[in-house]
Amino acid sequence: MPPSTVDPVQWLAREYYELNGSYIEILDSPPTALGFSRLVHISRPVIIKALHIPASLKWTDEYLVTEMGAQEISVAATPNGRADAVTEGPDGSFYFAEPYVDKMTMSGLLSKLTAVASDGPEVHYLQSQNGNLYGAEFFQGQTDAKTTEFELLRKDVPSEVSWASKALDRSPDAVNVWIGNGKSITSVHSDPYENLYTVVRGAKHFTLLPPTEGRYLNEKWYPHARYTRSSDGRLELTPSKDAPPVRWSSILEPHLSGALPAESHPIHVTLLAGESLYLPAGWWHHVRQAAGVTIAVNWWYDMEMRGVSWVMLSFMRKFGPAALDFDDNEEEGAE
Amino acid sequence: MPPSTVDPVQWLAREYYELNGSYIEILDSPPTALGFSRLVHISRPVIIKALHIPASLKWTDEYLVTEMGAQEISVAATPNGRADAVTEGPDGSFYFAEPYVDKMTMSGLLSKLTAVASDGPEVHYLQSQNGNLYGAEFFQGQTDAKTTEFELLRKDVPSEVSWASKALDRSPDAVNVWIGNGKSITSVHSDPYENLYTVVRGAKHFTLLPPTEGRYLNEKWYPHARYTRSSDGRLELTPSKDAPPVRWSSILEPHLSGALPAESHPIHVTLLAGESLYLPAGWWHHVRQAAGVTIAVNWWYDMEMRGVSWVMLSFMRKFGPAALDFDDNEEEGAE
Repeated sequence: MPPSTVDPVQWLAREYYELNGSYIEILDSPPTALGFSRLVHISRPVIIKALHIPASLKWTDEYLVTEMGAQEISVAATPNGRADAVTEGPDGSFYFAEPYVDKMTMSGLLSKLTAVASDGPEVHYLQSQNGNLYGAEFFQGQTDAKTTEFELLRKDVPSEVSWASKALDRSPDAVNVWIGNGKSITSVHSDPYENLYTVVRGAKHFTLLPPTEGRYLNEKWYPHARYTRSSDGRLELTPSKDAPPVRWSSILEPHLSGALPAESHPIHVTLLAGESLYLPAGWWHHVRQAAGVTIAVNWWYDMEMRGVSWVMLSFMRKFGPAALDFDDNEEEGAE
Repeated sequence: MPPSTVDPVQWLAREYYELNGSYIEILDSPPTALGFSRLVHISRPVIIKALHIPASLKWTDEYLVTEMGAQEISVAATPNGRADAVTEGPDGSFYFAEPYVDKMTMSGLLSKLTAVASDGPEVHYLQSQNGNLYGAEFFQGQTDAKTTEFELLRKDVPSEVSWASKALDRSPDAVNVWIGNGKSITSVHSDPYENLYTVVRGAKHFTLLPPTEGRYLNEKWYPHARYTRSSDGRLELTPSKDAPPVRWSSILEPHLSGALPAESHPIHVTLLAGESLYLPAGWWHHVRQAAGVTIAVNWWYDMEMRGVSWVMLSFMRKFGPAALDFDDNEEEGAE
C-alpha cells in the first residue's frame, strides 16, 4: 500500500465520533440480560440506575468498622493521591509511580480519610483491585482459595450481576471495593475488561474517551518507580531496578479544559450513590472522587476475545499514537 | 503520523485470523434471542440447524405451481449464470453486468430450471432480492403497501425469525425467496446487513471471507452494463449510459484453489436443505448452488449502526484495498 495522505486511525476516530457523538444512555433500571448483551455490542458507556445491592443501605462507617474489626486491609499511600500515575521524581525525571501499600484496619482507613488535617502529607486510597471482594480463585471454585481482605463484607455485595453474567455468558473475573476521598485520583487508562461500577457512598467523576481517541492521550514510555517508606516514615519515590518501563498517558488532568487536544471528545460523567456505570472494554477513563468518603464496588468481566472487538482494541493501541515505535518495545515484552 | 512500514489493514487482517482462525460454529438448534445477540457481537458465520419453516415441508414443484398459478415473477436472465458480476463485453472490456429481467410464471421458471436442455443459451435465477416475500412496506405497516410477487407464499415463511428480531431489537428489512439451479452464481460481495439464510430445497455452496480480508478481492471500478434482449430475442450486454461505475471484486471464482492470494483465509460452507446460515454484516460471500433446483429464503436485518461495527466496515472498505483512490471516487457518489 502506498503511504496514504489520510491517517487511518485519525479517520477512524473522526468517523466514530461523527456516528456516535458524545451521547451517553441513562437507564432508569438495570437492563435484562438480552438488553445488556445489545449494549455490550454497541460498547458505549451507559449510566444504570437502581442496581440495588445491600451495601448501599448498610455501609455506614460504624457498620464497616464493626464488621471488618481487626481485619488488615492493603491501602495505597502516596504523597499526592496519584497512585499508578506519571509523577515527577526527586531527580526531575518523570516516572510511572506505584504507591506504597500500608496495612491498616477499616477503622484506621476511615480515620485517615476523614481526618480534619486532611491536607496532611499523605493520601490513602483503598484501590487494591485484585479481586479484594471476590477473585479468580473464588470464581474458579477452588476449595483452598485464600480469603480476601474484604471477605467479611461479601454478604453485602453479590459476587455476580445476574443480567451481566448471563449476557456475557461468564462469571466476573474480579469484584472489588474502592474507598477513597476527594484527594485520590485514578489516572487516565483503559482496561481490556467489561466493567460495571456502582457507587455506594459519595460521588465519582469520570472523564471518558472512546478507544478510538487513545491517540490524543500522549502516551509515552516511563521508567517504573515505587513509593517506599524511608527510615523516618516519609514516602520516597524510588526508581525500580527490575521493572520494565510502562506505556502511560502524559496527560495528568484530562478533565480540565484545554488539557486534551481540541479534536478529542471527552465525556464527563458524575456518578452519584446508587448509580452504576457500564464502562465498556477499552474505554479510557480518569476517575476522581467528590469531597468526603466515596465508596464504590465494581465487577470486572473478561471481554469477548472472539470476533473483532479485541483485535480492534489492539489495532488502536498499536496504530493510534503518533509514535509507532511503541510497538517495537511492546514486542520485546516491555510492559 | 510518519508513514508506517506496517500496512495497518494487513496487520488487522492477520491479527483477526490469528485470533479467530477459520472456525465456524454449528448449532444443532436455533439460539435463544440472548444467544443470538452474543453471536452478533462475535460477528462470525454460524450454521444453524432445525430452523423449521413450513416451506421446508411444503414447497414441492407441484405445490409451488399450484399456489402461485398465473402470478408473474421477475427472473434474472444471463447467458452465463453471472448476474451482478464482472463480465467481458463484446468489445473486450470488462463490465459490471446487471441481468435482464424476464417475467414468467412459477411453472415457467421451474420448467426452465429443470429443462433437459439445461445447457441452453440462457441461465435463469430468481434472485429479485427486493423483499419479494416481505419488504420494507410490509414491516412499516403501510396499509397501501403494494403486493409482492411472492405474497401467495407468505403463509409458508414467517415474516420474522423471532429470536433474531428480539436480539436485534428490530424487524427485518426484507425477506426474500431465491430459486435457481447449478448454473446460477452470485459473485463475491458483502452487504451491510445481518443475514439469516435458510435452504429449503437443494444445497448452497458458500465461500466466505471476513470483512478484514476484502483487501484480497482485487476490487476495481467497472463500467456498468445491462443485459438487454435484441430483436431476435438474444441477450446482449449493453453498456449503460447513465449508471455510474461500480466497485466490484475482479475474482470471479474465489472458491477455486489458487484464485485468492495465499494470505487469505476463505471458509467453504455447504448448506443443505433444512440448514441455515447466520452471515454477519460485512462478511464477503460467493454463492453457488448444487445441481438441480435449489430454493432458499433469507431474512435481512439492518445492522447496528451505533458503536464501532459500522465504522469498522467503512474503515476496511476505505483503507483495505491497495488502491486508495477508491475513496475519491466514492465521495463523488460513484456507486
